[in-house]
Amino acid sequence: MIIWVTGANGFIGRHLVRELAGAGHAVHGVGHGALDAAEAGRLGLLTWINGEIDAANLNALAAHGRPTQIFHLAGGSSVGVSIEHPFEDFSRTVTSTARLLEWLRGSAPDCALIAASSAAVYGADHVGPIPEIAVPTPMSPYGQHKLMMEQLCQSYARTFGLSCTIVRLFSVYGPNLRKQLLWDICSRLKAQSEALHLGGTGGEIRDWTDVRDVARLMTGFTATSPEHAFRIVNGGSGRGTSVADIADGLVRHWGSNTVVHYSGVGRPGDPASLLADDNRLRHSGFDWRIPLDRGLADYVAWFKGQARG
Amino acid sequence: MIIWVTGANGFIGRHLVRELAGAGHAVHGVGHGALDAAEAGRLGLLTWINGEIDAANLNALAAHGRPTQIFHLAGGSSVGVSIEHPFEDFSRTVTSTARLLEWLRGSAPDCALIAASSAAVYGADHVGPIPEIAVPTPMSPYGQHKLMMEQLCQSYARTFGLSCTIVRLFSVYGPNLRKQLLWDICSRLKAQSEALHLGGTGGEIRDWTDVRDVARLMTGFTATSPEHAFRIVNGGSGRGTSVADIADGLVRHWGSNTVVHYSGVGRPGDPASLLADDNRLRHSGFDWRIPLDRGLADYVAWFKGQARG
Repeated sequence: MIIWVTGANGFIGRHLVRELAGAGHAVHGVGHGALDAAEAGRLGLLTWINGEIDAANLNALAAHGRPTQIFHLAGGSSVGVSIEHPFEDFSRTVTSTARLLEWLRGSAPDCALIAASSAAVYGADHVGPIPEIAVPTPMSPYGQHKLMMEQLCQSYARTFGLSCTIVRLFSVYGPNLRKQLLWDICSRLKAQSEALHLGGTGGEIRDWTDVRDVARLMTGFTATSPEHAFRIVNGGSGRGTSVADIADGLVRHWGSNTVVHYSGVGRPGDPASLLADDNRLRHSGFDWRIPLDRGLADYVAWFKGQARG
Repeated sequence: MIIWVTGANGFIGRHLVRELAGAGHAVHGVGHGALDAAEAGRLGLLTWINGEIDAANLNALAAHGRPTQIFHLAGGSSVGVSIEHPFEDFSRTVTSTARLLEWLRGSAPDCALIAASSAAVYGADHVGPIPEIAVPTPMSPYGQHKLMMEQLCQSYARTFGLSCTIVRLFSVYGPNLRKQLLWDICSRLKAQSEALHLGGTGGEIRDWTDVRDVARLMTGFTATSPEHAFRIVNGGSGRGTSVADIADGLVRHWGSNTVVHYSGVGRPGDPASLLADDNRLRHSGFDWRIPLDRGLADYVAWFKGQARG
C-alpha cells in the first residue's frame, strides 16, 4: 500500500514510519527536516520532501502514486512555542491541514486521513477519564489550534465525504524524545544533582503511553465507514500516573538516590489531570503492550546510550 | 477616534463606515475591491487598501496612526461559495483573522477588536431562540470557518489579553444587498413572473435585521472589560419571521398580485429556524428601530430605484 506520513521526521513520525515500512508498505513523507536520501532510507522512507504541506509538494509526492492512507502528524508540537509564536503554531497546525484537506478533496478523495491531535484540546476542566464527547475547552494556542485542525477535518468529512480519523494522543514518551518531563529529569540526573526540583505538586495525573505502542496504534486505523466519515478516538491507555511516580521510576531505573522536590505551584494552564476514557479504543480491540515500568526502563537505557553515542 | 474596518467595501462594511464617519471618526479600511480615492472618500474612508489582511497592509494603515477600534468584517460571505471553494473561504475567514490578531498582539495590543460572525455557527439543530451559550454545530464550511475565527479571537483574548467582541449576525438585509432571498424575489418580481416558485416550505424562520440597524449596533461595541476580554453577543432581534411572510411583504410593497409557491423540499443543511435569543443584547440597552415592514418597503424602493439608475 502507498502511505504518506506528514511530519515523518518528528518524534512520533519516525517511529510510525519504521512500523509502516516494517509491515511492507511504500512510505513517503513530507515535513520539516534536512534528511538526505540515505538518512530517509534508513528511516524507512522511499521519498522525503523537506518543506511545507502544500499542493506543490503533495503533487510531487503523488508522482510516485496516489496514497491509500495519509497519517497527518505535521503541526505545532509545543505549548510553550505556541504561546511565544502563536501564528507559527497556527500555520503549522491549521493552515497545513487546510491545504492537505483541499488537496485530498481534489486529488485523492478516497484516501483515508488519520490525523494526530492532542489531549490538549480538552483543557483543564476535567476530572477522571475524559470521553471523546467531552466539550473541549483548550487552554493554550497549541490546544486551540489542534481543535481547529479537528474541526476542519470534520467539515471536509461532512461536506465532501472525506474519511477522517482523529486520534487524540495523550502523554507520549519513549526513545528519541528530547524534550518534556522525562528528558528534563534524565538530563538533571545525568548532571548528578543531589536533589531534583520540579515545578507543580507532583500530583498531576497524565496518561503516559510509549511511542512504540502509539505507532502500532496509529497503523491500526483504516478508512472510516462511508456513513460515518469522521470519528475521534482517544489514543490513551486509561491509566493515570502522577508526575511524582514518573520521577520516582526514572530515579530508580537510573540507579540514583536523588530526592525529588516539588515547588507546589502549578504552571498556569497546566491541567491537574489529563486521562483518557479508553472505551472506544478498547472496543477497537487494541491492546497496550509496554507497561509503564518497562517503558521508563527503556527510556533510561536509551538516554544513557545516546548520551554515550 | 481612529477606527479601522476590514471588509469595508462589503455590504455591511459600507453601511458601517458611513455610520462611523458620520459620527466624526477617522475611518480607514482594508479589504477587497478596487475603489479609487474619490469613491473611498464618498464611502467615508480616509484610506483604502485593496488587498489581503496581512502585516504589510496593516503596517501601511498604521502609518496614519494606530487604531483604537477595529471592526473586522472581512471574510467569506456565502455558504454556497464555501462549498464550492472551501479553501478560499478558509483563507478569507480564518487566515485573515489569524494575521490580524497576530498583528494586534505585536503592534496594537490595546486596540478593541469587534468581529462579525454569523448565526451559521449554530447549525440546524436548534428550536426557538438560540442563546450564545448553545453548543455550535455548524453545517457548512462557511459556518465552520466563522466558528474557527471566533475561537482564534477567544484564544488571543485568553492567552494575550486582546479585547475581542464577537457579534453573531443573523439574517441581515437592506439597501445594496444584491444577493440572497430579498434580491432573488425582487429580481423575479421585476421580470413580472405571474407565479413565483421558491425552494423550501416557506415556513423557515429567520431573524431578519435591517443593515442600517446592524451598522448602528456594531458601533455600540467598545472595548471589553480586562477581566472578560472575550465576549459573544447575538446580533439578532429575537423576532422570528417566516420566509413566506417575507415573500408576501415584498409582493405587497411591490404592488404585485404574484402568487408565491413553495417546492416543499428544503435545501440540505438549511436550518428550519435561526432565531436569536436577544437577552444579552437587550441588556446592553440597544434598541432595534426599523420595523420589518418598513425595512421591506425601503428595500423594494431601493431595488426599484437602483434598477432605474
